[in-house]
Amino acid sequence: MNAKPGIAELLRGVDEVLLQDELEKKLASGKTLTVKAGFDPTAPDLHLGHTVLINKLKILQDMGHKVIFLIGDFTGMIGDPTGKNVTRKPLSEADVLANAETYKEQVFKILDADKTEVRFNSEWMNALGAAGLIKLAATQTVARMLERDDFKKRYQGGQPIAIHEFLYPLIQGWDSVELKADIEMGGTDQRFNLLMGRELQKEQGQAPQTVITVPLLEGLDGVQKMSKSLGNYIGITDAPNEMFGKVMSVSDELMWRYFELLSFRSEAELADLKERAANGENPRDIKIELAKELIARFHDDLAAQSAHQDFTQRFQKNAIPDDMPELSLELEPDQLGIASVLKAAGLVVSTSEALRMIKQGAVKIDGDKVEDSKLQCAAGSKAVYQVGKRKFARITLS
Amino acid sequence: MNAKPGIAELLRGVDEVLLQDELEKKLASGKTLTVKAGFDPTAPDLHLGHTVLINKLKILQDMGHKVIFLIGDFTGMIGDPTGKNVTRKPLSEADVLANAETYKEQVFKILDADKTEVRFNSEWMNALGAAGLIKLAATQTVARMLERDDFKKRYQGGQPIAIHEFLYPLIQGWDSVELKADIEMGGTDQRFNLLMGRELQKEQGQAPQTVITVPLLEGLDGVQKMSKSLGNYIGITDAPNEMFGKVMSVSDELMWRYFELLSFRSEAELADLKERAANGENPRDIKIELAKELIARFHDDLAAQSAHQDFTQRFQKNAIPDDMPELSLELEPDQLGIASVLKAAGLVVSTSEALRMIKQGAVKIDGDKVEDSKLQCAAGSKAVYQVGKRKFARITLS
Repeated sequence: MNAKPGIAELLRGVDEVLLQDELEKKLASGKTLTVKAGFDPTAPDLHLGHTVLINKLKILQDMGHKVIFLIGDFTGMIGDPTGKNVTRKPLSEADVLANAETYKEQVFKILDADKTEVRFNSEWMNALGAAGLIKLAATQTVARMLERDDFKKRYQGGQPIAIHEFLYPLIQGWDSVELKADIEMGGTDQRFNLLMGRELQKEQGQAPQTVITVPLLEGLDGVQKMSKSLGNYIGITDAPNEMFGKVMSVSDELMWRYFELLSFRSEAELADLKERAANGENPRDIKIELAKELIARFHDDLAAQSAHQDFTQRFQKNAIPDDMPELSLELEPDQLGIASVLKAAGLVVSTSEALRMIKQGAVKIDGDKVEDSKLQCAAGSKAVYQVGKRKFARITLS
Repeated sequence: MNAKPGIAELLRGVDEVLLQDELEKKLASGKTLTVKAGFDPTAPDLHLGHTVLINKLKILQDMGHKVIFLIGDFTGMIGDPTGKNVTRKPLSEADVLANAETYKEQVFKILDADKTEVRFNSEWMNALGAAGLIKLAATQTVARMLERDDFKKRYQGGQPIAIHEFLYPLIQGWDSVELKADIEMGGTDQRFNLLMGRELQKEQGQAPQTVITVPLLEGLDGVQKMSKSLGNYIGITDAPNEMFGKVMSVSDELMWRYFELLSFRSEAELADLKERAANGENPRDIKIELAKELIARFHDDLAAQSAHQDFTQRFQKNAIPDDMPELSLELEPDQLGIASVLKAAGLVVSTSEALRMIKQGAVKIDGDKVEDSKLQCAAGSKAVYQVGKRKFARITLS
């Protein structure tokens, strides 16, 4: 993690590079490159999904380049000009500055503040005027805009596209001209807009920026993209213990995806971890390393240690042992009541003991307390049944 | 011509009124209406085609309303933003003002200067800014724009439409909002843009302007639209004699079209003229009245009288009499030389007299001097042959 990262770390897990040979030449030139990334000016509340991009910016900083954290306040101060989205109110200059501070607090947990320039595009967009915007609009065609995937679908589907939506990619592109960006990074959904920057730069006689798109990170469920509204996120201001627990809850497969996109470990270090897993090490222990890396980044090393300890204690307290009897019980339909199952498995000596233990809250299925003493277990199910602290059985009902 | 014109004169020959009942209510309200008409800020060189619209503005002035002669200098000062049209250079403010003066010199030959306000849309468009233009663009959809005939054709035909072309109708519409126009007049080709004014006014809570479109005037040929580049025009700065001659050259049918669109005669007066023609009066004499009306407008009454006299003198000098022998000659191919034809028609006593008269420039066919004594006349042709001042024959060669 201390060695200077290389192009392998930079491009690990990215979606697309346009154009890679151009990027390699720029990186090899020895020049300090200007790396642009645009951010929404609305109140930021970042989660790990956002940090995929920010991590790549950090890698570029570690490689010696300058990052411009561009806040698109110009359109933010317009709000939703269609007036349809009441929640997208126009921001005041004070809002913009306050949001910028919140951004800084969060992103400087990753980015190097000394190598980051925070800019606002209102700086040049207000000066551009209606005439400047018209000139900009004259450089691109309607047909070209309608090639953009979402525009094409909406147009063909008879869904309205307001004309100003054609202007926003131009503004984003113009930002690259104003900043003379060498590289612009963004999400895959920004691909068209990032390429617009290349076009406008070429028209202005500038070398076109290299475009690097990063994928959308999957949330804790491993399926949907990470998003606050879906509840499947790890916020970068989440408390250490919460962060630890959430990381530990992801599947082994998703853990590797998170390593790829969220860890600053080098390629060699990742290869080591994979070898350990291949050699039979419990993936849980590798997941712990990911959790600690992330907590150290957003809190500190001590918080990471402490969260680890807390987790271990809680885990041991509620731990389900690796070794336990594995039973396969063939029961009649009228024997599938929880008390009968526990007796059949030998976890209790009688159904009355079973009922008493349930009443005491001492019976769990897969760690969940059984509340209903008349619970019917499902034929064909497989689960860990627990009575008290010590008695466990993994039971398949057939 | 002195009585106050009414709605019949206003709507004579117009293409479309949207909406007529709305217009009637506005005119009946007793309010002084604001009538908007937009003009290109490039150097104006007006011909009668342009005056169709200006005449209607004059009628509205005579009805008591205020005309805003709006010069679209905002986009003129941008020039051709695509840079493709090198002849459409950006205008300076000095250019705009100079062109406005040239406009005034010309249009105040028709319009009442006291009831005309000359405005420039840069007044509000510069202040609108990029943000204002974005808000404006948000009010309309791409699909709506692509409904415009020329856009639709170009899009479907794969011809490029630059995005700023979508902004121009919005700007024109916004001008109506700024001026609170009650009526906007324009050419039929402006229909879409004029209706945009209605839409934007409605969105701003204003009563929508009534739109009146006027047709494109046919040129002297009666087929193509009047245009300087086609050479079929009468310029409003043409000299009186030139104007007279051009008006006299139009067909009888086109004369009535010109009366409809270019004359300030009342409906009753036009009906009188048509009755005179129906009663057998030579249409030439009615055409003279049109020529004199137009010359009086763009020069003065004296110039009109004098042009009429000049025309009559030239006409009498070169006049082709109404009565002359009508001959049908059946000649062999080798008898179709001009000298033989003249002899066969009895216009000369010998081919040698014919050749001498041709040499003297005294022989004409349909008023055109014959220069070539070996001219072969075409079998099947019909023309007036003239020798000297007095001898004429209308000859059909078969």
